[in-house]
Amino acid sequence: MPQGENDKLSTDPYKGVRDFYPRDMFLENYITSVMRETAERYGYVEYGASILERTELYTSKTSDEIVNEQTYTFEDRGGRSVTLRPEMTPSVARMVAAKRRELAFPLRLYSMPNIFRYERPQRGRLREHWQLNCDLFGVPGVEADAEVITLAHKIMRAFGAQDKDFEILINDRRTVVEALSQIGLEEKQVDAFLILLDKRSKFETEVGFMAEAENMIGKERFEAFEQWREKEETNSHQAGELIGALSKLGVDNVRVDTSLVRGFLYYTGTVFEVFDTIPQNRRSLFGGGRYDNLLEVFGAENIPAVGFGMGDVTMRDFLETRNLLPEYISATDLYLCVLGKDFLDYAGQLAEKLREQGLNVALDPTARKAADQIKTADKHGVLFVACVGGQEQKNKTLTVKNLKTGNETTVPEDKVGDFIWNQDV
Amino acid sequence: MPQGENDKLSTDPYKGVRDFYPRDMFLENYITSVMRETAERYGYVEYGASILERTELYTSKTSDEIVNEQTYTFEDRGGRSVTLRPEMTPSVARMVAAKRRELAFPLRLYSMPNIFRYERPQRGRLREHWQLNCDLFGVPGVEADAEVITLAHKIMRAFGAQDKDFEILINDRRTVVEALSQIGLEEKQVDAFLILLDKRSKFETEVGFMAEAENMIGKERFEAFEQWREKEETNSHQAGELIGALSKLGVDNVRVDTSLVRGFLYYTGTVFEVFDTIPQNRRSLFGGGRYDNLLEVFGAENIPAVGFGMGDVTMRDFLETRNLLPEYISATDLYLCVLGKDFLDYAGQLAEKLREQGLNVALDPTARKAADQIKTADKHGVLFVACVGGQEQKNKTLTVKNLKTGNETTVPEDKVGDFIWNQDV
Repeated sequence: MPQGENDKLSTDPYKGVRDFYPRDMFLENYITSVMRETAERYGYVEYGASILERTELYTSKTSDEIVNEQTYTFEDRGGRSVTLRPEMTPSVARMVAAKRRELAFPLRLYSMPNIFRYERPQRGRLREHWQLNCDLFGVPGVEADAEVITLAHKIMRAFGAQDKDFEILINDRRTVVEALSQIGLEEKQVDAFLILLDKRSKFETEVGFMAEAENMIGKERFEAFEQWREKEETNSHQAGELIGALSKLGVDNVRVDTSLVRGFLYYTGTVFEVFDTIPQNRRSLFGGGRYDNLLEVFGAENIPAVGFGMGDVTMRDFLETRNLLPEYISATDLYLCVLGKDFLDYAGQLAEKLREQGLNVALDPTARKAADQIKTADKHGVLFVACVGGQEQKNKTLTVKNLKTGNETTVPEDKVGDFIWNQDV
Repeated sequence: MPQGENDKLSTDPYKGVRDFYPRDMFLENYITSVMRETAERYGYVEYGASILERTELYTSKTSDEIVNEQTYTFEDRGGRSVTLRPEMTPSVARMVAAKRRELAFPLRLYSMPNIFRYERPQRGRLREHWQLNCDLFGVPGVEADAEVITLAHKIMRAFGAQDKDFEILINDRRTVVEALSQIGLEEKQVDAFLILLDKRSKFETEVGFMAEAENMIGKERFEAFEQWREKEETNSHQAGELIGALSKLGVDNVRVDTSLVRGFLYYTGTVFEVFDTIPQNRRSLFGGGRYDNLLEVFGAENIPAVGFGMGDVTMRDFLETRNLLPEYISATDLYLCVLGKDFLDYAGQLAEKLREQGLNVALDPTARKAADQIKTADKHGVLFVACVGGQEQKNKTLTVKNLKTGNETTVPEDKVGDFIWNQDV
């Protein structure tokens, strides 16, 4: 929205992005911290990069559709073409290629980048979102695929989701590519058909997809492909090995789906996608796969790699639907109300002492009526309040009130930290 | 750099931004976590916003130089002008203005945004950096100024800096503006002179500044201004009140500097800057001030506000110079080496059990020689390693080696977490 009446600026954020007020930020931090902690539990260490990348990074192996229609790309003041990263994989591949001589492998990396796509804003598809990225470099075998899928599974479980709440679909892109070339498709046709296949679940009807598929590769070849799929889903050796490895690690909600190929052309082997099993909104939550050849675009010898990206918006929707989001608790442990300007100096010094005990303390310096100050604490979601006046200054005590239960307890100043940490909140 | 020979992509990041490999990220996380924890200690709660803002947000009260020469501004595919935020204050003012009826005041907010400026890259001035922003809304009095300056002081102390390592310069912008208008400057001249004054310490010689100042407002008026400054620095009532409030809170390395005005035109009262006292590189580390009128550009009634921004790059330089940066420790507690493919299944399941004990465990699935796997652990900066083979599988024990001391201890599988946490690292 442009400027309103009287030349006043709009308070709206830019279209398709989010403002995070403290309660939104709390949920965002909850979601990203569960992701981070679980990634670290599996030995992944954090890296980061700028959102600004040279545009050429996306002109090679990444999906053309994204580069041409969905990125924020512009010229900087020096005439260089810059892109706000639409995904993290090219950046991490670039970084690993740059230091492949110094880095030790196997190398486990994670990051929590914000990524940008110029899309029509809709539920779960904002123009900016955050995405956990986990990648394991240097291990070619199925055990690496099993590890990253196990990690994805454990993150879902760490959020409180049960195995019945989601399903992990797996496939091997190579077998699909082989089947398509045996049916008689040329390399370019294969790439185009894979992109169409990736959109299969997004067609309103299966008939709609079939019509387009037959139109693209011919009715006979499409039928041959569908026959291959049927045989493969019941009888896949490669997928069988992965399913076995996953089962040993306690991951059992897995199924082969031979339509699964993922949109990015850089995937070379295993691909997987985690699906929400809720009947009214069955959909892909996130996914990943193996990309063993991506480093060659940098002129580096290839390093086998497998990873996934897990977005904050989709996960937040999932957790909301399942009632798995936590209630807001302020990071502030104690709100100190001050009963008149006369006690401000004392309260300020007391607040310092309480902070030295390790408490997060907000001091209200407004000298308003106590009831108004307590109301402010409550609106901020702070659980404990205490008022500072003559009594407290004389006795060196605080009467700490729990705003949820209404309980009040009088505690010596130097024991307030101990008291609050022993409360069952 | 454009693509090199054979059409290979460059592995360089975009000019003027940083890649964060795990050891860089560790330091970045150290710096931001000290900032965050100290802000929360003072009752500040986290908010966030997108780096994308409508360009008009920066056309009003913020410094023109920044808008015209130093921002990344471009048109999106829908023809809207977008700017990558060059600072956070306009965004937080926008957010507070938008929800001023629902938010409770006093309101303490902090954020750790990355911000963008199109500058010639040089030491401490990258095109993207992260910046702690702390703001206190709703308190007009000097006690709010004292609180945010105390918080800034405490962050410096939390990094291990001593009072002698830095100095806090304070001033009141209003007194400067009043003095300039009494000397006979018109409003526009005042604004221009304030911008010149802000650059005073950046002139190579004081004589260079004086020549430009005399040229701008005339020799006589400049001399009158300098006389006023001299009187004011020894005899300022407003600054005296603030200095007194700070002293009561234990902040004593404070001095009035009547040249201090800060570059942004939105400051209305107290301004402050924290200076590195090191003789060979005396310079401003960060600063802030009071901006009581910024919300009116949104057509909202004004809310008094005071805050500051503290950048990661400058702080990292400061901490490096003072030898205050911590040594790298991997987030991974234990690196599990596997003595042959036969033990992979067992090791995988054992790793799961160790993770359930709360340990961050990386498993090496390469089945290389033990020495090579241990070398990898060491290169990753992991402190503890253990090898899994027939012995371990039979005895249900692990021999945990500390790679720093070389000490080895054999521990039952289910006690590995307890053992590692009891080590003095």
